[in-house]
This record gives sequence, structure tokens and C-alpha cells, in this order.
Amino acid sequence: MDTSKTVLKITRRVGLVLCIICLLLIGRVAIGNTVLANDPTGITETADAAIDYVWVLICAFLVMFMQPGFAMVGAGFTRAKNVVNFMTESIMDFIIGSLTFFLVGYAIMMGTDWHGIIGIDGWLMLGKYYDVDQYLMMFWMLVFCATAATIVAGAVAERLKFKAYLIYSIVVSAIIYPVFGHWVWGGGWLSNLPYGLGALDFAGSGAVHALGGFIGLAGAIVLGPRFGKYDKNGKPQAIPGHNIALAALGVFILWFGWYGFNPGSTLSAHHLRIAVIAVNTTLAASAGGLSALLISWWKTQKWDIGMLLNGVLAGLVGITAACAWVEGWASIVIGLIAGALMYVSVKFLDSKGIDDPVGAVSVHGACGLWGLLSVGLFADGTYGIYSIEAPYVTGLFYGGGPGQLLAQLISILVVVAWSFSIGFLTFKMMDRIFGIRVSPEEELQGLDIPEHGTPAYPDFLTMLK
Amino acid sequence: MDTSKTVLKITRRVGLVLCIICLLLIGRVAIGNTVLANDPTGITETADAAIDYVWVLICAFLVMFMQPGFAMVGAGFTRAKNVVNFMTESIMDFIIGSLTFFLVGYAIMMGTDWHGIIGIDGWLMLGKYYDVDQYLMMFWMLVFCATAATIVAGAVAERLKFKAYLIYSIVVSAIIYPVFGHWVWGGGWLSNLPYGLGALDFAGSGAVHALGGFIGLAGAIVLGPRFGKYDKNGKPQAIPGHNIALAALGVFILWFGWYGFNPGSTLSAHHLRIAVIAVNTTLAASAGGLSALLISWWKTQKWDIGMLLNGVLAGLVGITAACAWVEGWASIVIGLIAGALMYVSVKFLDSKGIDDPVGAVSVHGACGLWGLLSVGLFADGTYGIYSIEAPYVTGLFYGGGPGQLLAQLISILVVVAWSFSIGFLTFKMMDRIFGIRVSPEEELQGLDIPEHGTPAYPDFLTMLK
Amino acid sequence: MDTSKTVLKITRRVGLVLCIICLLLIGRVAIGNTVLANDPTGITETADAAIDYVWVLICAFLVMFMQPGFAMVGAGFTRAKNVVNFMTESIMDFIIGSLTFFLVGYAIMMGTDWHGIIGIDGWLMLGKYYDVDQYLMMFWMLVFCATAATIVAGAVAERLKFKAYLIYSIVVSAIIYPVFGHWVWGGGWLSNLPYGLGALDFAGSGAVHALGGFIGLAGAIVLGPRFGKYDKNGKPQAIPGHNIALAALGVFILWFGWYGFNPGSTLSAHHLRIAVIAVNTTLAASAGGLSALLISWWKTQKWDIGMLLNGVLAGLVGITAACAWVEGWASIVIGLIAGALMYVSVKFLDSKGIDDPVGAVSVHGACGLWGLLSVGLFADGTYGIYSIEAPYVTGLFYGGGPGQLLAQLISILVVVAWSFSIGFLTFKMMDRIFGIRVSPEEELQGLDIPEHGTPAYPDFLTMLK
Repeated sequence: MDTSKTVLKITRRVGLVLCIICLLLIGRVAIGNTVLANDPTGITETADAAIDYVWVLICAFLVMFMQPGFAMVGAGFTRAKNVVNFMTESIMDFIIGSLTFFLVGYAIMMGTDWHGIIGIDGWLMLGKYYDVDQYLMMFWMLVFCATAATIVAGAVAERLKFKAYLIYSIVVSAIIYPVFGHWVWGGGWLSNLPYGLGALDFAGSGAVHALGGFIGLAGAIVLGPRFGKYDKNGKPQAIPGHNIALAALGVFILWFGWYGFNPGSTLSAHHLRIAVIAVNTTLAASAGGLSALLISWWKTQKWDIGMLLNGVLAGLVGITAACAWVEGWASIVIGLIAGALMYVSVKFLDSKGIDDPVGAVSVHGACGLWGLLSVGLFADGTYGIYSIEAPYVTGLFYGGGPGQLLAQLISILVVVAWSFSIGFLTFKMMDRIFGIRVSPEEELQGLDIPEHGTPAYPDFLTMLK
Repeated sequence: MDTSKTVLKITRRVGLVLCIICLLLIGRVAIGNTVLANDPTGITETADAAIDYVWVLICAFLVMFMQPGFAMVGAGFTRAKNVVNFMTESIMDFIIGSLTFFLVGYAIMMGTDWHGIIGIDGWLMLGKYYDVDQYLMMFWMLVFCATAATIVAGAVAERLKFKAYLIYSIVVSAIIYPVFGHWVWGGGWLSNLPYGLGALDFAGSGAVHALGGFIGLAGAIVLGPRFGKYDKNGKPQAIPGHNIALAALGVFILWFGWYGFNPGSTLSAHHLRIAVIAVNTTLAASAGGLSALLISWWKTQKWDIGMLLNGVLAGLVGITAACAWVEGWASIVIGLIAGALMYVSVKFLDSKGIDDPVGAVSVHGACGLWGLLSVGLFADGTYGIYSIEAPYVTGLFYGGGPGQLLAQLISILVVVAWSFSIGFLTFKMMDRIFGIRVSPEEELQGLDIPEHGTPAYPDFLTMLK
Repeated sequence: MDTSKTVLKITRRVGLVLCIICLLLIGRVAIGNTVLANDPTGITETADAAIDYVWVLICAFLVMFMQPGFAMVGAGFTRAKNVVNFMTESIMDFIIGSLTFFLVGYAIMMGTDWHGIIGIDGWLMLGKYYDVDQYLMMFWMLVFCATAATIVAGAVAERLKFKAYLIYSIVVSAIIYPVFGHWVWGGGWLSNLPYGLGALDFAGSGAVHALGGFIGLAGAIVLGPRFGKYDKNGKPQAIPGHNIALAALGVFILWFGWYGFNPGSTLSAHHLRIAVIAVNTTLAASAGGLSALLISWWKTQKWDIGMLLNGVLAGLVGITAACAWVEGWASIVIGLIAGALMYVSVKFLDSKGIDDPVGAVSVHGACGLWGLLSVGLFADGTYGIYSIEAPYVTGLFYGGGPGQLLAQLISILVVVAWSFSIGFLTFKMMDRIFGIRVSPEEELQGLDIPEHGTPAYPDFLTMLK
């Protein structure tokens, strides 16, 4: 029978792959079947270590759960003909992010520091890195890395070749995120700036969101706008998302996951400040959604759910850097401004011919920068930096002087320069070598059939748009 | 270019808004750039405080995640033409609830008590309320407040003006929930009734669910039924929900979130009773789903998923008040009765001309009252009230005497009277002033286009019903 | 009025049911209104107990949340005409699992051991089982039980009578899972094998996944393939899932829930090894997805999302048994092999005329066995079995000798024999008595209307396939 033959053939080839794996494996075992490790067992007699582990792990699980949030928002805001493509990308960036960050990213970001620029050990978490503390920290940084990678997807949606997606995911996870992460969180030069307390970014407005947003901007520029985004006169056209229920679910999931992202960044449950962080996150998200909704209502007399959803995300991104250092009312102000900033940024990019299908650049890029800035303004001097002994952070409005603001401004310039330039280089090089945009026919047909061989909704009658 | 102009105009106006915010901000800073606070830093040396914070926060995150649960159930059970409307409402009630409860609700509910009626300080969480304990408690009560507000949405779906939705959300979050919450949870008069141990409501069958349900009843009555709900002879017609997968997902999410709602209400991880509460929650949900499914199968010979889903919710609502004070088998009995009660209530409301599109009044209103009652019957005298020193709660079936039952009956009357009357007043006043129902044309077309300017599923061919 | 009459009639009958419940209740109360219990109150002064409870409970909540994950994957991978059916089943197996396991399952699985074969007390969790520790353990085992039950659904989808679904759910929850669970986790004979440290299965590759998978295989064989699965020449045809976005969401939810499933299986937060387990889970899932995607790309030149999604699940199932006992790099190898194995198994079953609509047998059955085996190969001797005093587990590649591998092979044989035979018997007996397959007309029409009286998507124009 023909099928049997196919199975046989597949089995044989899979066998080949397995053989290679086994060889690698034997190689590894040959190196040493004893584990040279620090403390991989991790048995503790104290509740203190246990509660910190539980806190960080559960928060990390919540951050991981932001992955479907991003996937649903992105798929919901794009067209039915590209849903399989967007979903495959969303899963693959987490897969590639996890493997790459485990293999090399963590070593670069958190390994032993080399002149403030890069980390240089911890590859594959072998040897002394086979340790429960190291694995915990690696897991935490890994879910953040994957968040940075997936943000890009929205800006390059509906026209990027899948192959290019896989490649830039590797670049983000192996280079762009770990290196910048080292600078600001791994003991690198940005954290040691001689202004204020050095550049500060509590949970990653810059290191995750602005970074992802500006890589996305580079991608959107190299790709150019989708067919139909601009009419003959260059006027931007709305391309409505195919499933608003899905997009709204995605935003709710992201909001939920953000309670891991921000409060979890204390990396300790012994800082009861986590309660303030949770409240600040809630208030900024609410304020961001409110201001974006009201502005769009004021312009169009419609209650625009797209702006509402992106406004919520804008507020969340905006508060991420300062969430631990400000009071509730300040979070509302930060959120209101973030929602408005997102609105202006969306209109601005539209008018400049940059097509960002889900608004990722405005939400994560622009509001990420605003988040970095806000630390230098609103920090109220009641909490330190990741450590209970650290000096408390104070911004301009609380008499902290301009030093902190200056450090924040420098980190803004650096994150934009670093992520945009390496991102641009990556997309441009790929474009030169194999062309990163799908053919016009494929784009019109949608990417699902040509790239993935299957439509997302085969039982439904759809309008191809 | 025209777009540039628009952007310019928007920027200018946004600038205006930002200026106002800045003025407010400067005002705030002028008042004092030092923080007069209790303990906003929250550094602890003990694992005991840390674990209680982690428990309460993570449970609060789960309660927050019930928001998309309600959104999916409501959207799934209504028609495709109103999905954008329902989603926008679901997000806005959380936004409005969060901001309002932070600004004024918490002060009314948990501020210093004034004659058992109302709390009178804690506005904006300023001054001594800038404290980690206070922020934690505020966050907990905030997510409950938002739950009460969102319950109403189901009962008024598919015909309420969006503006009216925004206004009643403010009323629920600023007045109806905080005042009643003060009475039963904030040291107010209901908790000090001289019968039994005073009115008891462990996790809010009354204070959240019945309250939301009866506000919804008021709304449904003021609005009147949807077009097509009754035929010429006044016979109720089924209006099937547009997406059963979405509704089922919503119920699963709610069930998941309820593990925060009920066990988290110990407000302490040191009460290992949380294990019993989790089990009781599971059993009652299961029993509620089972009895509703079996009753509907017995009547129609069909396995009705709508009744199954609402039966699960009925069981969850029913066990919420007593979840900490009863044994596993009693939870099954409470759930079975809740499922049946929901079924009867749905048929009863249908027959009385009250159109509750998703069954919110039956699920949350009727079963919420049953939950309050059940405490006076099944409490088995093995656990106290929120405190390990408190006397244990004992109901009629365990020899506790009629005192507790009487207290529960009083709280039933009060929650119905309070929430229905203020709810009715709110909807009626709005109706007088600007008319809360959309025009017949808008209702037939669906609210998505006229109110929000966009359909939920633009790529799919739909049947307008 | 006719409706009033109906309501009256329903009320009367519901009254009858309630009377029966009340009688049962009075019977229970008559037996004793005092609670003969161990420690149902569970007041602790130590943070140590509190943190372990919080850890286990939250992980159990995550495992419960896998239920909608399975529901979404299954519904997404099947056709629009059977969505209501699949959702109803998914909810009912959790309901039946919960009630059955509480009533009898836990006693069989974890009650006092009788000759290594079965537990014999703890029915209804009465008497000394009304204890916080017992309730906690019951809740943990209950969510695992429901997982085993729901795995079967995918293999028998789109053609099984709903009645048969309810019955086999009872059999799985009352007999198949609890008995095998007793053998391996309840102190039964498999855990006491005289080879290695006895059969080991950290989080249930065998006791949950392989068990569910092979019951599913039995069901798929008894039922036979769906219409249209094979053409006239017996060549297997693809029947595409109706909603890939839903299926992808389901896989993300499952991945998230698995962070409860695996790390939570320490049953203690004092084992900081939980960090390693979380990382291993992530890496194996990633590797499984990657290998399945690459193999299918190599065969078809398409990026097949179906294979990617099932590859992720294959990796998760594969690592479940060994997750606590291996290093990061080994998890990648285990995951790569699991993804490839799933691919081969899917093609093999297809070629043998066994129709498993969502790939449940390949994902859970085949990879579950691989998981059991991998413990005997890769365990690296750095961690014990559920207890900090236990000897550390060592596999063949780390010099542990063949004993452990032998114990694992025995457990592989036993889980296949036990679950397949009892599963086959159950389906076959039901088939003899009332016929478990729906009529050809119902199958072609889809099960939603004939079994449940409602379509899943009434507002959309669908293509009946």
C-alpha cells in the first residue's frame, strides 16, 4: 500500500535524525556522566526561599501566558486570510526564543560581565549554571525575551515571508534582547551611568517593549505598506481586523499576564510593594484605555474599540518602567498620557506611509519610551531598586533633581539606536539575500494557503479582502 | 497634505488635554512633594507576610481574569451584530470600576466607619492610605467591584445605549457596591446584626452576585424585551447565541477565576481551609451544571449546552457565600439546588416578559440569594469568619439554631431592596433624561455599526438576525 | 397562559427532585450532625505549611485550566457542525470526573492500601477524611483525573453518542484512572517494583497521558473511522479543523496549564527544583514543536500548523514523566524525539485505518510511553522522588544501571494493557447494548442539532462538510 511505503520512508528518515541526536547525546555523555553543578537539587528548609520561588515562577507563568494574548490581538486585528500565518509565527517565536535564550542568550545577558558590554559564560546552562537559582533567573529572563520577540510580529504582519520571521526571531533572542538586557539589567554600562541611580527600567518599558517596538518599526519600513493600505492619493485606509472578539480576548489576557510582568519584577515576595505595583498597573491600563477611547470619540463620535484596546496596552506599556516607584494617582496620569501618545503616534505613522497593522510601534515603541521618561519625573522616593537596601528612586517632581531624568533620556536614545539599527540591518540583509516580502499574488490571496497549506476557517464562507 | 493637518489638529488638542493634566499634577505636587504615608515601601523580613500577600494577589489576578470570562459568555450568548458593543462594555466597566473605586469607592467601603452606614476617608488612597496593606485590600475589593458591575451587562445586552452603560458603571462602582460592601464587609450594620454571628457572606454571593443580578433585573425591566423575543401571542422565543465555543470558553475562564474568588477570600494563606474551599467550589459548580443539564434533558430530550453552562455558573454563585463553612457533600447539594433554581428562574422571567439575554438575573440574582440562605442551613461549625480566633459558623442542620438563618434572611431582603431600588432609580432617571434604549433601527441593525463604527467579523458572511 | 403552566409544571417536578435531595440530606444529618473529622479547620501558625498549600493549590488551578485548553484544541481541530457536541463533552467530563472522583475515586486511589492493588476507604471524604491535607491531595488528584478523561474525547470525536460519552467518563474517573493511579502513586505494586526505585512517573506521562491515549485508541477502534476519512481506495484524507485560531489558543492554554501540571507535582514549594522543572517543560515543548514542524516542512514544503501544535503537546507529554530528574539539554532531546514520534505515529495510525480526529492517541499515548522510558535513560542523579530524603533517580546514561529502565518498561506494558483493555471492554459493551455510534444521517448533519438542538454558529453562513 502506498501509505505504508510513505510511513516506511518517513520512519527511515526520522530514524536518521534520531541517530544524529543520539550521537550528539553520546558525545555529551562521553564528556561526563557526572553533573558538575552548583545546586541543581534545591532543597530548602526555609519558607523564605520557597515563597520567593513560588512568587517568581507563578509570575513567570503569567508572563508566558501573554504569548497567546499577543497572538489573539494580532490575529484578531488582521484579516482571516492570514490567521494561520500569524498563529504559526506567534508559537514559533516563543519556541525559538526559548531554545535560543537557553542555548546562548542567557550567557550573553546574565553571564559574568565583560567590561560592561556583554556576559561571557553560562552557555547551555551547563556546569555551575546547573543550579536552581540560575534556572529560575533564566526562566524569568526567557519569558521576557519571548515577549520582546513577539511584539515585532504585529508590525510586520500580513506580508513577511515565514522564513524571514524565523531568522529575525533568532537574532532578537540571541543578540538584540540579551545584549541590551545586559546593559540595563545584567550589570552593564547603562545601569552604571553616573547620573541619578543609573538608567532604571523596573519591568521593561525599554528593555522589552520599546526594544520590540523599534525592531518592528525597522521591519515595517523595510517591508513597506500592505496592498490597499493607501489609496491612489496616498491617503491611509482602514483595514479592519477580522475578529474583534478575539482581539478583545487577547487584550484581556495581556492585562492578566501583566500582573506577572510588573509585580513579579521585584523577584522577591518579601517586598510587599508588590501590592502597590499591582494597583498601579491596573490604574494605568484603565487610564490609557479611557483617554484613547475619549479622544477617538471626540474625533469620530464613535466608541472605537480598536483605540480602546490599544489604549489599554499603551497604559500598560507606559507604567511598566515606573510601576514600582510611583503612587496610584501618578499611574493614572502616566496612563492617560500613554493612551493619548499612542493615538497621536498611530495617526502620525499612518500619515508617514508606515504601515503597522496592529499598532505595535505606537503601543510598545512610543509608550515604552514614555515609560522610561516617566521614571525620572514621577518616582516618589518610597522604594528602591530590586533590593531592600538600595537607595530609593526619586524623580524631578519629588525633588530628585535632573540626574535621574538625564539617565532615563540616555537610555531612551540608546534603546532606539540599538534596536532600530540592528533590526534594520537584519531585515535589510535578509531582503538583499532572499527578499523578505511575499509575492503580490500571495499577499492578495493571504499567506495561509501558500505558506502553510491550510486556511484558518475552512467551514465558513468568507469574503476575501 | 490632509492627513498631516489632521495629525496637527489632533496633536494640538491632545496637547490641550495634557496641559490640563499637567496643571492638576502641579497642583498635586504643590500640595506636597513629600509623601505623607503609612508604609508604602513594604519591606518585610518574614515569610508570613510575604506568603499572605502572594496568596491574596494571585487570587486577585484570577478574579480580574473573570472579566474576559464574563465578556466571552455574554458575547457568545448574544448575536454577531452586537459583539463589538458587548466587548467594549466589558472592558469599560473594568476601567470605570477601577478608576472610580480607587478614587472614591474604597473610601466609602473600607474607610473609617461612620455609624455603621458608610466609610469616610481614604479618597484617592492618599496620605496614610498610601500603605501596602491598604493597597492590597483596595486591589482585592476593586476586582470584586468590577465583577458586580460586569454582571449587569448580560441583562441589558443588545439594546442599551453605550452612554447609559458608562453612567450606570460609575453608579455601581461609586455607590451601590461600596455602600452595601461597607454594610457587610466593612464593619457596617449588617455584619453586626444581633442574630447568629451577624449576616455572613464569605466571598460575595450577596455582596457581588445578587447585587449585580438585581441591578440587572432593574435594567431589564426599564429597557423592556428585545425585538423578536416575544411573538404576537406573547410567547417567548429563543434568540440563539452566535458563538457557543466562545461562551463555553467564557464559562471555563470564569470557573478558573472562581478559584481566586472563593479561596482567596480567606485573605490569608495561613488558613489551610483554602483546600476545602477549592474542593467545595469545584463540587458545587459540577453539581449545578449536572442538575441544569439533566432537567433540560428531561424536558426537551436534548443535551442543552446553554443550560449546562448557566448551571455551572449557578452552582458557583450558589456556593460562594458558604464555601468556607460547609463540607464537600453539602456543596454538592447546594450546587444541585442552584442549578435547578436557575432553570426555574429562567423560565419564570421568560414567562413574565422580562428579557435577560444571557440569564444574568437567574444565575447571579436568584442563586446569589440561595447562597446567602444556605449559610444558615449547612454551615457545619468547623471554621470561623475571616479570622482564626473568630467563633465557628453553625447552621440549622448542625444544631446552630435559627439565629444565623434569620441574619441571612435579613441580608437577602436588604441586598434585593438596595440594589434593585438604586438600580431602578438610576436606569429610570437616565431614561427620562436621554432615553437609554437605542432606536428600533439601530437595534435591528445591531449596535456595532451605529455605536462603534465597526462590525466584529468583517471578513465573514453573516446572516443578520 | 401556556408559559405559566409550563413553569408551574416544571416547578412541581423540580420540587419533587428537591424533596428527594432533602430526604437524602435529612438522612445524612440524622446520621450525625457532629462532624467526625481530622482537621477540617486547618489553622496554621507556620509559613511553611501555608506556602506548600499555596503552591499546590495554584498549580492545581492551572491544571484545571487545561480543561478549556483541551476543549479549544479539540473543537478547533474538528468541524463547525460538531462544536456544541465537543464543548458539552469537555465540560461534562470535568463535571463527572469531579463528582465521581470525590465520591469514590479518591478512596480507590489514595485510601488505605489493600495488598498493593486498591485503596479501601475515604468514600465521600467523610469522617477522618474531612481534613485539610486530605482535601488538598484529593483536589490535586481530581484535576489530574479529569485530564485523563478529557484526553479520550479527541480520539472519539464527531461520531460518538453523547450518552456513551457520559458513561465512559464515569468508568475512567471511578475505575481506570484511580486503580492505575493507586498502583503508581498510591503506594501500590508498580511503585514497589524491585527494580531501580520502582516504576517512576513524576507528573503523569503514563498515569494520565498514556492512560487517556490508549483508552482513546480503544474508542477509536470500536467506533471506526468517520465518513470521508478514507476514500474508495482506502487512502486517508485530511479533514481540516474548522478554527485554527481556537486550536492555537487551546495549545497555548495547555502549555500554560502544564506549568501547574509538572512543577506542581513536587507537592511542595520547599523543593526549589521547581525552577528546573519549569525550564525543562518549556524546552521540551519548544523542541517538540520544532521537530514536528521541521519534519512536516521537509515532507511537504509547507509550515504545517497542525503538526506544530501537536508537536508542542508531544514535547509536553514526553517530558512529563522525567521533568524533575533531567537537565535542560536532555529535555531538548526528549522533546525533539517526542515531536518526531508523534509525527510517525499519526502517519502510522492513518495508514492502519484508525481515525483519531485530533491526534490524541499519538500525542498522549505514544509520547506518554516515550516519557516513561526516558526516565530510565536521562535521569541524572540530582533529585529524589517527591521527598527530600528519597534516593536520587539515575538513568542508564548517567551510570544508573538497567534496573530503572526495566521498571519503566514494565510500567509501559502495564499502562497499555490496563487502559486499552478496560477501555476496549467499556466501549464494546456499550456498543453491544445500545450502539455507541450516531446514525449516518446524524454524523453527516453533525451532532450539534440532533444531540443538542442548537448549532454553534447560527449567525454565520457555513459550508456543511
